[in-house]
Order: sequence, then structure tokens, then C-alpha cells
Amino acid sequence: SRELFVLTYGALVAQLCKDYEKDEDVNTCLDRMGYGIGIRLIEDFLARSAVKKCRSYSETADMIAQVAFKMYLGVTPSVSCSSAAGNEFSLILDKNPLVDFVEELPAERASLCYCNLLCGVIRGALEMVHLAAEVTFLQDKLKGDAVTEIGIVFLKNTEDKKHKRN
Amino acid sequence: SRELFVLTYGALVAQLCKDYEKDEDVNTCLDRMGYGIGIRLIEDFLARSAVKKCRSYSETADMIAQVAFKMYLGVTPSVSCSSAAGNEFSLILDKNPLVDFVEELPAERASLCYCNLLCGVIRGALEMVHLAAEVTFLQDKLKGDAVTEIGIVFLKNTEDKKHKRN
Repeated sequence: SRELFVLTYGALVAQLCKDYEKDEDVNTCLDRMGYGIGIRLIEDFLARSAVKKCRSYSETADMIAQVAFKMYLGVTPSVSCSSAAGNEFSLILDKNPLVDFVEELPAERASLCYCNLLCGVIRGALEMVHLAAEVTFLQDKLKGDAVTEIGIVFLKNTEDKKHKRN
Repeated sequence: SRELFVLTYGALVAQLCKDYEKDEDVNTCLDRMGYGIGIRLIEDFLARSAVKKCRSYSETADMIAQVAFKMYLGVTPSVSCSSAAGNEFSLILDKNPLVDFVEELPAERASLCYCNLLCGVIRGALEMVHLAAEVTFLQDKLKGDAVTEIGIVFLKNTEDKKHKRN
């Protein structure tokens, strides 16, 4: 039963909104917390799912949507590849269980990415299997979008090296 | 799968420890948050469990342990009545899933009731079915006790009225 989790997550976001005036700071904090969770959760995920090594970004994105989301949130986002280079993916959620108890964002919190923890979790977990990625919300039903969309951009090795060099 | 919940709860407690220097303040805050969760969770619980009205404090305590804990945390505490008056109960947990990822409390946090959210949840949920109760941790494995024990004291009507009068 996820209700206790969903309500506890709401209490966490509410606390951060008390702590930080700026939505950007709340978003950053949620992402950072999620990262810390992701680097620990991956071990549980690999043990429990018994999945084999993914051979492509596409397989990895499918694994996140079909196995990880199903396992931890009970929903399965649809996946689409959004770049010719094959390293950008969207996870599209018709239903986001984390916002079950949220009616809408208050007007003064219009830039809040309420579920930003999830981005951090994905980023942290991917990093532990040696995949650098940027993970962000591209659309959010809470902000009036038709669906909730999480974008994952896998940073290719060459780009990755460039990042490190700079 | 509860791991994401357990880790998120850990992030919440860590954030409160950043926010408040004193353990007592963290404990109070967790209890208050739990209360807010309990008064919302009870609706989900009643709908999902389809339980009938409890006719005694003893039945209520059993319901919390055998149905609610099982439903939301996947464990079933044992229940014992600890007063001749029949209004004090202990829920005894051999295993507390909320602390799965916690090794031990840091020395400077020796008075932290890490799981105090649960007390608030129980208190809030009971209040919504018109049962006033005090809910506190009496023992905690995290503090070196042999078991984790949550005490529930149902406030009887007379006592309740006294409280209100004072």
C-alpha cells in the first residue's frame, strides 16, 4: 500500500517549502535527496529484479519504466526516444501516484517540481551502473500539462569526457 | 516495494535534523507531521480494509497491529495490554521496516525517536474515529532496546473531559 509513502512524501515537500523560499532551491534539494536515495536503491533493485546488463540506452530506459517504476511506484510509464542520436528518452506518465493527494500547486509555488525526487533517484541509480544522465521534468500534470513527462538524456562518453575536461 | 518509502523517510528525518538542533524538536515535528498524515490516511484505511466498528480498546489495538501495520508497513506487531483498566496497550515490533537502512543513531542524536512519525499517524487516525489517545515510543531497538515498543494509551471519556476542563 503506497498511501503512507505518498503522504510522507507530501510532508517532506511541505517541510522543504517551509525551509526554502525559492522553488528552485526546493527542486534542487529534492533532486539531491533523490540522488542519495538512488545510489542506495540501485542495489535493492538489481537484487530484486535480477535483470541482466542492458546493452543500449533504449533497453535501459525500458528497464526504468517497465521494471523500476512498476516495482517502486506501481505504474508503468510509456517510453519514447526523442533524439536521432538515440540518447534522449521520455518517460510519460498518465497517472503519477506521488501526487494522489495533491489537488494543485499553490499559486506562489508555480515553479515547484513536486516530484523532483524521482529525477534524482533515477540519476543516482544510473550513475551507480556507470551511466551519466541528466534527468528533468519536461511536463507536469500538476502544472496543467496533459501528461507528466520525465526526460532522460544519457551523456555519451565523448560528451562526458568533455564535461570532465571543462 | 517499500525500499523507496523507507529511504524517503530517512531523507525526511535527515532534513529535520538539519532544521532542528534539538532531538525533542525533531520528535515533535515528526509526530505533528504524522498526525497530519493519520487524519488523511484513515479514510484510505477504512475504505480498503472494510473493517467494522471496533467495540473495545482491545479490538482497536488488534486492528492497528494486524490490519493497519500489515497494510502499510508489511509487518504485524504483537499486542499486549499493559493496564488493569484496559486502556493501555503495547505494540511490539521485532522488526521495524522503517529502519532497514539505519545502522544506528549518531551519538549526538541519542534522544531522537527516529520513527516518531508513526506515533503521530496512529494518534491522528484514532482521533478521526473519535478516539483520543497518547502514542509514544516506549522502547526502540535503535537505542539498544531488545525490541521496538509503541505505547498507546486510550484516554477515557472522564479523563478526556478532565483534560478539556483543565
